[in-house]
Amino acid sequence: MAQKPSIPKGTRDFSPTEVAKRNYIFSTIKQVFEVYGFQPIETPAFENSSTLMGKYGEEGDRLIFKILNSGEYIKNLNYKVSEYILKVFLFFINDFKNKNKKISFGVLIQVLNDELNVDLRNLKDDKNIDDKIITPRLIKIIFEVFKNNIEEFKEIINSYNQIITYKDLKEKERAFLFDKSIECFGHWTAFVQSKSVTKFISEKALRYDLTVPFARYVVQHQNDIEFPFKRYQMQPVWRADRPQKGRFREFYQCDADVVGSKSLWQEVEFVQLYDSVFSKLKLTGTTIKLNNRKILAGIAEIIGAKDKLIDFTVALDKLDKIGEEGVTKEMLSKGISEEAIKIMQPLFHFNGSNQEKLNQLEELLATSEEGLQGVKDLRFVVDNIEVLGLQSAVLELDVTLARGLNYYTGAIYEVSAPEGVKMGSIGGGGRYDDLTGIFGLKNVSGVGISFGLDRIYLVLEELNLFEEVELPKPKVLFVNFGEAEATYCMKALAELRTNNIKSELYPDSAKMKKQMNYANRRKIPYVVIVGSTEIENNNYTLKNMQTGNQQLCSLKELLEIIT
Amino acid sequence: MAQKPSIPKGTRDFSPTEVAKRNYIFSTIKQVFEVYGFQPIETPAFENSSTLMGKYGEEGDRLIFKILNSGEYIKNLNYKVSEYILKVFLFFINDFKNKNKKISFGVLIQVLNDELNVDLRNLKDDKNIDDKIITPRLIKIIFEVFKNNIEEFKEIINSYNQIITYKDLKEKERAFLFDKSIECFGHWTAFVQSKSVTKFISEKALRYDLTVPFARYVVQHQNDIEFPFKRYQMQPVWRADRPQKGRFREFYQCDADVVGSKSLWQEVEFVQLYDSVFSKLKLTGTTIKLNNRKILAGIAEIIGAKDKLIDFTVALDKLDKIGEEGVTKEMLSKGISEEAIKIMQPLFHFNGSNQEKLNQLEELLATSEEGLQGVKDLRFVVDNIEVLGLQSAVLELDVTLARGLNYYTGAIYEVSAPEGVKMGSIGGGGRYDDLTGIFGLKNVSGVGISFGLDRIYLVLEELNLFEEVELPKPKVLFVNFGEAEATYCMKALAELRTNNIKSELYPDSAKMKKQMNYANRRKIPYVVIVGSTEIENNNYTLKNMQTGNQQLCSLKELLEIIT
Repeated sequence: MAQKPSIPKGTRDFSPTEVAKRNYIFSTIKQVFEVYGFQPIETPAFENSSTLMGKYGEEGDRLIFKILNSGEYIKNLNYKVSEYILKVFLFFINDFKNKNKKISFGVLIQVLNDELNVDLRNLKDDKNIDDKIITPRLIKIIFEVFKNNIEEFKEIINSYNQIITYKDLKEKERAFLFDKSIECFGHWTAFVQSKSVTKFISEKALRYDLTVPFARYVVQHQNDIEFPFKRYQMQPVWRADRPQKGRFREFYQCDADVVGSKSLWQEVEFVQLYDSVFSKLKLTGTTIKLNNRKILAGIAEIIGAKDKLIDFTVALDKLDKIGEEGVTKEMLSKGISEEAIKIMQPLFHFNGSNQEKLNQLEELLATSEEGLQGVKDLRFVVDNIEVLGLQSAVLELDVTLARGLNYYTGAIYEVSAPEGVKMGSIGGGGRYDDLTGIFGLKNVSGVGISFGLDRIYLVLEELNLFEEVELPKPKVLFVNFGEAEATYCMKALAELRTNNIKSELYPDSAKMKKQMNYANRRKIPYVVIVGSTEIENNNYTLKNMQTGNQQLCSLKELLEIIT
Repeated sequence: MAQKPSIPKGTRDFSPTEVAKRNYIFSTIKQVFEVYGFQPIETPAFENSSTLMGKYGEEGDRLIFKILNSGEYIKNLNYKVSEYILKVFLFFINDFKNKNKKISFGVLIQVLNDELNVDLRNLKDDKNIDDKIITPRLIKIIFEVFKNNIEEFKEIINSYNQIITYKDLKEKERAFLFDKSIECFGHWTAFVQSKSVTKFISEKALRYDLTVPFARYVVQHQNDIEFPFKRYQMQPVWRADRPQKGRFREFYQCDADVVGSKSLWQEVEFVQLYDSVFSKLKLTGTTIKLNNRKILAGIAEIIGAKDKLIDFTVALDKLDKIGEEGVTKEMLSKGISEEAIKIMQPLFHFNGSNQEKLNQLEELLATSEEGLQGVKDLRFVVDNIEVLGLQSAVLELDVTLARGLNYYTGAIYEVSAPEGVKMGSIGGGGRYDDLTGIFGLKNVSGVGISFGLDRIYLVLEELNLFEEVELPKPKVLFVNFGEAEATYCMKALAELRTNNIKSELYPDSAKMKKQMNYANRRKIPYVVIVGSTEIENNNYTLKNMQTGNQQLCSLKELLEIIT
């Protein structure tokens, strides 16, 4: 009973041709990264859950692929959960059997409530738990009591197995215990429903992006790193997202970041870097959108909506989708005043050259220190790019650009594909002033950009920009007419291969036609035919599969022609 | 409260230098693979569990990293498990309440036993389950009864919540239900302990090797593939193994396989391929051990232990560890007769040239057709390798070589590092006649080899064979003395970078000393110093960091010197 083979949704196999095309993009990006002085690092596919969880917001946490603890995880889960239930039982039992036992229900609740503010918060917060049920907490605390004494636990389980037969119990106990035993199902159900069970069965998770692992890396290896540290990283990441065009559950990110410097030159360099990569890929006409978080903060400030910075930005970000009216309506609904909106009116039809935009911004933000700093930062990048020039990309100020505002603190980048290509952003990035802080290394500013390999691939495909990719196929096939001929061919093959010519012998002495078809279907440009006459005269018949021309040649000539 | 950063045990971060060294090995193997006509494919990091489970034996299954179903897996788990328990309850309850209910305990056990031979086998086989507890099966079957009627299930839960209060019940019911309620913990505990819970919470698993995903790939894409299909694949695999020297939980495999041909030329080529790669890596003195499964089968046959093939091979495989005596003892203990052992005596001190070994084998196996076929196959490889020659490796027949016998059907390869280097095998492979069979594509023979990248890395490290690796660091650093100087430098940088020279500007106009130290610590060979005078004269001061020499030069000269 063979299984029909398939792969998980959102993942892909890559054929030789696809791999070759992807590698063409990878190596182009890699080369430019290194030319700009970036160095590669690699991190593990999975990290400790504690490294990843809580870094991407609630949505992000949900999309992180979690790995089951290996080996005995099930026994552990069972231990944890059944311990809980058994112990709730035990508690009641002991409460009856053993009157001089100190621990009482009231005491437990007390200890519980003290504990509650610490590691049980996640239980409390858990939507799935009916708050009227105190017992998951009760269970938890009883567990705490026994935690460091598994022996005692086993003992009691045994004793409990003996003790609890119906006949042993007095009528009153029976009634109570019976009701409790029913109740217990509620307890453990609530517990198993609670998110808190996850941490008993999973402690590792697949990488969700390259930025958090990088921050972890920098802090962990800070003593071996020279700052400013310019690193690049090209590895797959995994997200349990709903797959759609240009969105996969396994995809590659190609990131370059600099940490340990606030220099605006880096922000200039990243514009150049984007331009270099897309120019090398012959992907002309990309637009590199640039903004600065300080501009957004400045605007919020001058319109007196500093407290509504996020609402305000989210609305502004939609300008191209819902238009001025839509944005105005949304802002009003968020409690931003009409006067405020009037002040920022200019931003709604914000055009002209980057310099003109900067001048307008300077007026608009005249009263905001932070805003003017933003203008100064942007001007530095814009001016220097004008001096240095770009090959094929266009740098465009876009004050509506936000992308994960709560994350970025300075420059914000986003790259869009040439006009006419329907595709989301093919790259983005920005400056974050304290990424490593979460891992305990404070005040290390960083700035970085990312390339979306899988989307770039789709764009190049759509625009037929893959011509020049060399496919990983042999340049020449030696036809196989039998052992003697094959041996003769293998000697020539050895020579070709030491000269790094991709070449192969058809493995079986199959019919000529079959072997030629193989060469044709694989578009192998040359075929070498060797029969007894060639062996006698120590030469080779070389056939050019495009032209169909055949010629006799020596090994030396063969090499020259094919190389 | 920042967390101390760390990574899961058995995984590793790779620094820029380590990445460069690893890439040196990767690209060497990749180049040779392609020169031999192999084409790259890539498969997803995780596969459907059904694709991987059961392919690597019980041990293997245990070592596979399983991925938690994303999103609501917990609710699902809870559903499944709590349904089971509640329903056991319900059964007993209904058995009381509803006398005209058809389904009785006896009936359930009956249905159960019928079902048992089908999808419950894994429960039955489960070591963790106390066989005296029938109930996991009972639970399971009750679940089956309700499976397609979740509404009925909910109804009954509600009714049950109302019904079951102690007072409602007659004495007899109370006693019975109480004991049952206790029993239930045993039931669900046994269930949760059973492996069968895993499939409710995990349907994907991380790749354990590249061979099974490749087989899956071949079957899934059989219509797009030209056979014989020569593919290579270099990707990480994950195993929840106990980490130790040369063994990691995340490590790379580099595999080359040919499927769709039984040709012995392929077996010759893989010997050459190993030799080519290790020679290119300057790793001389490796030993390529070769054996053939037919030899082992032949020996087993002539000593009349055909049925004991595996015991016999496992014992023989230990010859170098436990010696002749040890092997003899083990074979006797496995029921292999003294006469049998006497017949195979020669194998215990089996030496001489490969040709001599082949002659001895031919005598020894004279009466075994399969054995003689094995000699013939080996002779083909040995003879042709003698004709074609090897650059730096030694080909050595080793009749004790088995590695995963039940898996291989023809040639068996294993590569050991040069003498004196303590390291397990650094490569291995062999022929398997029906790998794709498990996925429904019959009679497609394959043969392949694998390189253990991480072990090769350790060997090269130990033997200092990494000299020639170019580290991914800039060739030149431009010192940053301020905005005017930096702008001047950035123009030169643009020029260098278009010429693919790795170069960077120190991002901040920090103290000269600090910038020079940075260059020193990163071993950057050249530094360019630009002050106002250089700008006036439109030239650059170039400092060679090895010699300490400084010279003034034009941009053109700068390019020539550094390139």
